[in-house]
Amino acid sequence: MVIDGLQCGFFDREVFLDLKEGGFLCVTPTLGFWEGAMESFDSIAQWRELAAECADVMVIARNLADIEKARADGKVAVLLGFQNTNCLDDRIRYVELFADLGVRILQLTYNNQNELGGSCYEEKDSGLARFGKEVVREMNRCGILVDLSHVGPQTTLDTIRHSERPVAVTHANASSLYVHKRNKSDEILKALAERGGIIGCAAYRNIMPKSAAASLRGFCEMVAKTVAIAGIDHVGLGTDQAHHSSRKYLDWMRMGRWSKVVNYGAATAGNSEPAGKLEWLQRPSALGSVAEGLRDVGFNPEEVDKIMFKNWLRVYGEVLH
Amino acid sequence: MVIDGLQCGFFDREVFLDLKEGGFLCVTPTLGFWEGAMESFDSIAQWRELAAECADVMVIARNLADIEKARADGKVAVLLGFQNTNCLDDRIRYVELFADLGVRILQLTYNNQNELGGSCYEEKDSGLARFGKEVVREMNRCGILVDLSHVGPQTTLDTIRHSERPVAVTHANASSLYVHKRNKSDEILKALAERGGIIGCAAYRNIMPKSAAASLRGFCEMVAKTVAIAGIDHVGLGTDQAHHSSRKYLDWMRMGRWSKVVNYGAATAGNSEPAGKLEWLQRPSALGSVAEGLRDVGFNPEEVDKIMFKNWLRVYGEVLH
Repeated sequence: MVIDGLQCGFFDREVFLDLKEGGFLCVTPTLGFWEGAMESFDSIAQWRELAAECADVMVIARNLADIEKARADGKVAVLLGFQNTNCLDDRIRYVELFADLGVRILQLTYNNQNELGGSCYEEKDSGLARFGKEVVREMNRCGILVDLSHVGPQTTLDTIRHSERPVAVTHANASSLYVHKRNKSDEILKALAERGGIIGCAAYRNIMPKSAAASLRGFCEMVAKTVAIAGIDHVGLGTDQAHHSSRKYLDWMRMGRWSKVVNYGAATAGNSEPAGKLEWLQRPSALGSVAEGLRDVGFNPEEVDKIMFKNWLRVYGEVLH
Repeated sequence: MVIDGLQCGFFDREVFLDLKEGGFLCVTPTLGFWEGAMESFDSIAQWRELAAECADVMVIARNLADIEKARADGKVAVLLGFQNTNCLDDRIRYVELFADLGVRILQLTYNNQNELGGSCYEEKDSGLARFGKEVVREMNRCGILVDLSHVGPQTTLDTIRHSERPVAVTHANASSLYVHKRNKSDEILKALAERGGIIGCAAYRNIMPKSAAASLRGFCEMVAKTVAIAGIDHVGLGTDQAHHSSRKYLDWMRMGRWSKVVNYGAATAGNSEPAGKLEWLQRPSALGSVAEGLRDVGFNPEEVDKIMFKNWLRVYGEVLH
């Protein structure tokens, strides 16, 4: 059984059948990056349509009870999330509206600074700004999990301290294991863990050690080193795998409507093609094989379960309602 | 005890205290006329703010159980409604989103024809159009009451027949008692009643017989004549009273953003000022006195209760969920 804290791309029936086959208990897809409020409401509507079409294999979950029911029914639970807060269109009260419509995870910033705080790609990180503080409190109240992936280091630290509930870095790695703006310092990972949070180890080629990209064993060794930093109760999986990706999809992530030129994010001009699937993770369903890999690098069965799904369930239980 | 099927204007604490004093069990305010989706989401957010501020005297209700609980708690129940479907921005799936956010009444058109059908003020009434048929089915499914006030006569008849659930004319009168485009023919009222619907008798000066505007007894005689047409189970109250109205508010109703000149609706160029409160209804709380007036014109206690609130409760019970 496995929970993936973040995926992106286009989901369809084929994807859910594969996830189900792979023993997925729960997954968080990406409903938007740069989209404003109306487009985000539209995205929720489209996901409801998808859920109706795929009702035999998946269900949109709002809390732990929904996830448990999905497990009992043999369906993949989906937690709706956005990789930005652009969907709020600067309205504090939309946090509650989106929560009522089922949104359970919001990343404070994507690759740009916004009204809430700084991004990992900005030269200077403002820290958690005034609107950011308001939104985090409101997300705490409404039962939405704060995601700090892509968020700047100071804003990440500020938010860990400001939030009354555990927060998540759904898809990143430890920067002490691979230096990258998208990755998180040991200081951040320890602070995150102290407040009950979780990091989902990413399986995205551009932000992981070469050895972790190269083999399942290498990946599991990276997870073990992350556990050594953050603790066994605070590490999970957040692959950042993209389904049915395309050049157009990549361009939208990289440029939105805010730039006339491509901004490569974790890629570079010389390495601009889709990062490509890892050899040991050609299909999302292969993620379940990480359990065996974790045993092979020395984790006991209870520890394996924590990394595979139990740590995510604990955080969901403490935050979502 | 009284239910008012439609009011408009600006609600505040003062209004709710007055309604509570007047024995109001439930009221439907107007959250919008010409507003698009974003402005309508904003309006819901503002109503939630108002509900938080006035939590001791009012509560936003979603169904009959909520209304019964409000009664037990001594609070006024509020059913959120819009006097137009402009809030959908042509999206069928927004019906469900607005329902999830608590909207329980939508009037298909305001004073103009729209994508759904014809208005009472248009020269030609298209009847219920394609999008209108889709929306009515979706409102049936989602538990939103269809309001046919301001809607054109053919579209009104089409909708009564098309809807799988009882529909309402929340605020109008019988045109056989006072000839006006806003009022409804006996044919419509009988068809409405046959399908379990309800008409809320309006206390808006411009669309009622002079005698009904002039005195409580006159109003109750009008109600009695309406009952003679539609039947005792299908008549309630829907005053169309406006709280804290203003020239600016009137201009918005009359012009929206669609016209550069004032369109008077039920008023005229020679009679363009706010219609003015009726002498017997200077404060909303005075609506409770209609019960005594109804007894005076010959209704028995059970009949009085039906007109004052029980008929509305029956329809709410059959439609809202």
